Amino acid sequence: MSDRSKIEERFNELRGEEVVYAIHRQDRTFLPTRKHCPLCPTRPDGRAGGRAGADTEIPVPAFEIAVFDNRFPAFQAPRGAAEVVVYTDDHDASFGTLAPERAEALMWVWRHRYEELGARADVQYVFIFENRGVEVGVTLHHPHGQIYGYPFVPPVPTLELAADARLGGCAPCSLLAGELEDGRRVLHQNEAVVAYVPRAARWPYEAHVTMREHRASLLECDPQELRMLAGALQALVRGYDALFDRPFPYVMAIHQAPTTTRAAGDPPALAAGAAAAGGHLHVEFYPPLRTAEKLKYPAGSEQGAGTFISDVLPEESAAELREAIVRGT
Amino acid sequence: MSDRSKIEERFNELRGEEVVYAIHRQDRTFLPTRKHCPLCPTRPDGRAGGRAGADTEIPVPAFEIAVFDNRFPAFQAPRGAAEVVVYTDDHDASFGTLAPERAEALMWVWRHRYEELGARADVQYVFIFENRGVEVGVTLHHPHGQIYGYPFVPPVPTLELAADARLGGCAPCSLLAGELEDGRRVLHQNEAVVAYVPRAARWPYEAHVTMREHRASLLECDPQELRMLAGALQALVRGYDALFDRPFPYVMAIHQAPTTTRAAGDPPALAAGAAAAGGHLHVEFYPPLRTAEKLKYPAGSEQGAGTFISDVLPEESAAELREAIVRGT
Repeated sequence: MSDRSKIEERFNELRGEEVVYAIHRQDRTFLPTRKHCPLCPTRPDGRAGGRAGADTEIPVPAFEIAVFDNRFPAFQAPRGAAEVVVYTDDHDASFGTLAPERAEALMWVWRHRYEELGARADVQYVFIFENRGVEVGVTLHHPHGQIYGYPFVPPVPTLELAADARLGGCAPCSLLAGELEDGRRVLHQNEAVVAYVPRAARWPYEAHVTMREHRASLLECDPQELRMLAGALQALVRGYDALFDRPFPYVMAIHQAPTTTRAAGDPPALAAGAAAAGGHLHVEFYPPLRTAEKLKYPAGSEQGAGTFISDVLPEESAAELREAIVRGT
Repeated sequence: MSDRSKIEERFNELRGEEVVYAIHRQDRTFLPTRKHCPLCPTRPDGRAGGRAGADTEIPVPAFEIAVFDNRFPAFQAPRGAAEVVVYTDDHDASFGTLAPERAEALMWVWRHRYEELGARADVQYVFIFENRGVEVGVTLHHPHGQIYGYPFVPPVPTLELAADARLGGCAPCSLLAGELEDGRRVLHQNEAVVAYVPRAARWPYEAHVTMREHRASLLECDPQELRMLAGALQALVRGYDALFDRPFPYVMAIHQAPTTTRAAGDPPALAAGAAAAGGHLHVEFYPPLRTAEKLKYPAGSEQGAGTFISDVLPEESAAELREAIVRGT
């Protein structure tokens, strides 16, 4: 399907980061018609939502959640991994409209992939994410996310580890305590999870969904916590959709501990190792909208200087989002 | 015009960077009709390209280059500066179509602003840039750029200083030597300036325009070098426009030495101080296009992990751009 030789990593000296060239990706499937959706189940009878004649990526007539290697990978063994996670066989669903038990099952799938990919010696960081909406470049509308297994620890988690060092402890733990104490930006909470607009959000409607207790990764969460996480994520995403009464585009990024320190034979619960490496399970959402119709564009200041300029105070967008979450419930 | 109290800086702990909230900017002029362009000259007779009755931002009937405070500033004294630089009174021109002597004059304007803003105690980094095209969020089409005087050294120049430290010398000097030796990505050169697609470009058609000799800032350049810089920048931008035979969107970012170390009374030529602080004048272009019609979207990997995934090898886009520059001449 893909040619390993077409993937190349180069170190960008001025930014101090790796850039990955995956040349075959220029040919990847681009906004196919519904009939040609490669993430729908293969239905030989050609019923709606499937494809007659030709197989899709998923050679079964129905499924709950499907995970497979990305046909157009940015990473590939033995230098990392790139997988696709299809949330449902319903082409018209979305993360927010999944049945609660399906969303909960998705947490277990994520956990399983984090465990399996993280155990590989060539994977130093497991990154689970979803791009939603043409505004963030989505090329397939069927509800799905992706997983990259980076063969290095990328810049953003590296910055999070630096924050731990600077604060002398877990940064997400300390930020969460501050948000709960302040309260103005808290969006939604349950026994295990808190959603809030961070005090120094870069995007107008940025939100973070953080485990109350220190959990380095999904592997440290008990079943109750995984169910609560799914519930908080769905509440937020339904709130996003209610905010402007339209499907709300976003990047959803699941941040967990790097898997650098984990050797192939280590036991599944990597509490000690992960705590040493740092990391606290939290999910960050970066929505590109600044109003119902206007986008926030990272431009001169963001790209050339690295400083986000925002039009919206986090307290104000939090108030709007809090109401939208109630409407979306 | 604006309310200082509406500008607020907050430190984003997880990213280790400042975020700036400039709330009044939500009301800024958004894609006005040609008749209402605030950057056109004020022509009481209402001739084309001007505005009858009401004044524009520029209260004169004609001008060459105009610089003034941004009405919707992201920074404002005594915590930095935000200025607008209008390249011409011709609404339909662009940086690439300016007469060579006008482009050269613009280099002197930039130099003057770098000097004056850099001398201020509240400005630690002078950042000159241009956002071009609706694809990068431009709200006014009249050809213009901007200048931010940051009251701190932002993340990108900080990373460039870190690169100097890592390489034990000036990183742009050493990268330029590598590009000249390799040669495959060089786009255009003259006696003083070299344009190339960097070996580890993040954007498909990213290009850097670098002074051959070590020059910390525009203040260190002699008149000949400033003319050569204008010429190389215009050649590149005309090549961009020729590439897909359409106005080519980009962010143009002028990187120079921070002005942290410079006190108000220092002499204009800050050779010694700037060399100590690090920095080498170069201009980076980040174009969002990956084909004539498709955009490259920074999404999950770029935003959530900090790693750019590119579809295009720098050698290949350099070959295309080199031909386009010849066509655009």
